[in-house]
Amino acid sequence: MKRELPIEEANRLINHGPVVLVTSLYKDKTNIIPVAWITPVSISPMLIAVSIHRDSFSLDLIEKGEEYVVNIPTIELLDKVNFCGTHSGQRIDKFKETNFTPLKAHSVRPPLIAECIGHIECKVYDKQKFGDHKLFIGAVVSASVDEDKYDKYLKAFAKEAKTFHHLGGDYYITSGNLETTTLSVAG
Amino acid sequence: MKRELPIEEANRLINHGPVVLVTSLYKDKTNIIPVAWITPVSISPMLIAVSIHRDSFSLDLIEKGEEYVVNIPTIELLDKVNFCGTHSGQRIDKFKETNFTPLKAHSVRPPLIAECIGHIECKVYDKQKFGDHKLFIGAVVSASVDEDKYDKYLKAFAKEAKTFHHLGGDYYITSGNLETTTLSVAG
Repeated sequence: MKRELPIEEANRLINHGPVVLVTSLYKDKTNIIPVAWITPVSISPMLIAVSIHRDSFSLDLIEKGEEYVVNIPTIELLDKVNFCGTHSGQRIDKFKETNFTPLKAHSVRPPLIAECIGHIECKVYDKQKFGDHKLFIGAVVSASVDEDKYDKYLKAFAKEAKTFHHLGGDYYITSGNLETTTLSVAG
Repeated sequence: MKRELPIEEANRLINHGPVVLVTSLYKDKTNIIPVAWITPVSISPMLIAVSIHRDSFSLDLIEKGEEYVVNIPTIELLDKVNFCGTHSGQRIDKFKETNFTPLKAHSVRPPLIAECIGHIECKVYDKQKFGDHKLFIGAVVSASVDEDKYDKYLKAFAKEAKTFHHLGGDYYITSGNLETTTLSVAG
């Protein structure tokens, strides 16, 4: 079951640096791309930065649609994520090809991916070209999570909620063991 | 042994979203802060975005010094990272208090932290206030890595090179198992 997440907790889905699937939509075109280059940048307001390659079809959809959804996949979805990363949405419908299930978002037009465990709905707040990518700053307008994969924080240490993280090239790690400390990284 | 890394590989130290230690320096003041909100944003040129809280002492040092180093700690350093995240550098010398060893950087004034396994030296290329943080875009001018922790990619799956990743609050995960796929996340 999906449940809504308070917007001020949305960063907890991506603080730990997982690969995400970004969905976008403009007119009758929808797309899904894997993105490793993403980070929260502010809590109040809740803002999230996503870097998108300048040649990407999704860049065009996000520019024109001005909205996107950040979806958090688990390691079981690696093959489908792989497919999305190696095909262009300009020629195919990735929802159809991957059998991913589109879910209506709460506050934006691009769909959520039902099989993912977390979802952050964003409206473009700012954008800027940096080198070979464009950096989109998204204002979070809604967030949701699989109820059993979240308990104040994402249970990325649990077998059924393993996220994956891009080392580079064809190499990834999954999320590992839980550690706790009083460390504040806000300072 | 540290060895220099080609600048175009610098993103491979942080693609997977670890907590990093950012060192900064201005005049006679040096500081170290843990940062979870960091991502590469461009390969050519190699640019890295770091989000720093507006109340942080390091913000002041980076603004004035216009340089910083991103250091990659392993899980063995968690206590020291914790100390750096819970004390302000305005009142103490964190290198002295943690016994971290400062190493002269190749191309910037802030020191590397010898105990960390990777280092990315940055000059401020752009900066912008977003909400309660400031986002610094750093141009990478030099990068280095512990020779035995890197083999084309960071060996974050190996016991002796485990990075850690912030879920939120006091919760972290370590880096887990290696997975490989042909996925491209540039698309």
